[in-house]
Amino acid sequence: MRVYHLYSGGKDSSLAAWILTRIGYEVKLVTVTFGMLDNWKYAEETARRLGFKHEILKLPRELLERAAEMAVEDGRPGRAIQFIHEKALEALASKPDVERVSDGTRRDDRVPYLDLSKARSLEDRFGVAYIRPLLGLGYRTINELVGRLFEVEIRESEELEKSDYEVELRHLLRERGIDPLSIFPRKHYQSRVLGWKEEKVKARG
Amino acid sequence: MRVYHLYSGGKDSSLAAWILTRIGYEVKLVTVTFGMLDNWKYAEETARRLGFKHEILKLPRELLERAAEMAVEDGRPGRAIQFIHEKALEALASKPDVERVSDGTRRDDRVPYLDLSKARSLEDRFGVAYIRPLLGLGYRTINELVGRLFEVEIRESEELEKSDYEVELRHLLRERGIDPLSIFPRKHYQSRVLGWKEEKVKARG
Repeated sequence: MRVYHLYSGGKDSSLAAWILTRIGYEVKLVTVTFGMLDNWKYAEETARRLGFKHEILKLPRELLERAAEMAVEDGRPGRAIQFIHEKALEALASKPDVERVSDGTRRDDRVPYLDLSKARSLEDRFGVAYIRPLLGLGYRTINELVGRLFEVEIRESEELEKSDYEVELRHLLRERGIDPLSIFPRKHYQSRVLGWKEEKVKARG
Repeated sequence: MRVYHLYSGGKDSSLAAWILTRIGYEVKLVTVTFGMLDNWKYAEETARRLGFKHEILKLPRELLERAAEMAVEDGRPGRAIQFIHEKALEALASKPDVERVSDGTRRDDRVPYLDLSKARSLEDRFGVAYIRPLLGLGYRTINELVGRLFEVEIRESEELEKSDYEVELRHLLRERGIDPLSIFPRKHYQSRVLGWKEEKVKARG
């Protein structure tokens, strides 16, 4: 039972990956890149430290450009992030050997989020199961589990070395002379998982 | 990390309970009764076979009567089932020692289902975390996991010996001279878990 799991190296996608292994799935982590930067390497490094298999999924640069246009048009990043996430899920689900796709989206997220009809449409169009282990968990539960499992680094998005869609989107905006801080919220903390907590490592040993 | 989990003995609430144990929770199963019937015993028996702690939660008969009125008024059971489920979660969450409540509601259920604002309201009013392990899982994933884990009996609701709200609701309607089949769908298959699959038992041994 192999599942391909969209992975940024952050706490949500790491927790979701762990839950998938706990309920019997063989998890393959997949990090999206548009080929502008090599920031996918942070996710690869975290995947290695956690002991997961990891690969990258290269999406066409054109999609990032369309997302950047949306972000500029809206003056905020929500629609752009949603667009990229949907395209990433579709690209993953359309690969011939993929029967199950998953991600770390959670109950309290506004974006990215696929509502019921979008989730079913993804499953039906590509003949896959779409699994979101965190969708029924609130922030208390996620914090409780993350706190037990992972060493986490939390920083502002502009400073953090991580592998989510935002990094390349910010980069492309800067290339076009647009200040990402005119679009992304100024105080936007994000997380990167550094590894298992010591007890967890022992528990696995 | 103890969680109190609303439990009917069916496949959804059994699968959700199993996932909770796999991610580190100490699970206490709780079956609701209005004291009209002793059908909670089926859930108790399944809980025993699966090796979970189990208790019953008695709700006031008046709530079942209000639910029956809703069902009669609507000519279908949705609002009544939703009403009972919300009252059950609230009764459980209001107990002094309860910090976490959970259930087996899933992505593809219409009822019972708490939308985001209701879920947050439950958490905030009672100071609990509300955990729904199946909310991000579609029917393919649930069937795949249930098939690996449990021996399941599937029958029409009218015939099945089980412990969900419907049984007492149907009973009360019959007492009042109302045919439950005028309210509940005629072909409505439900499940009862009989025990672990053999391999699973071995895997635990």
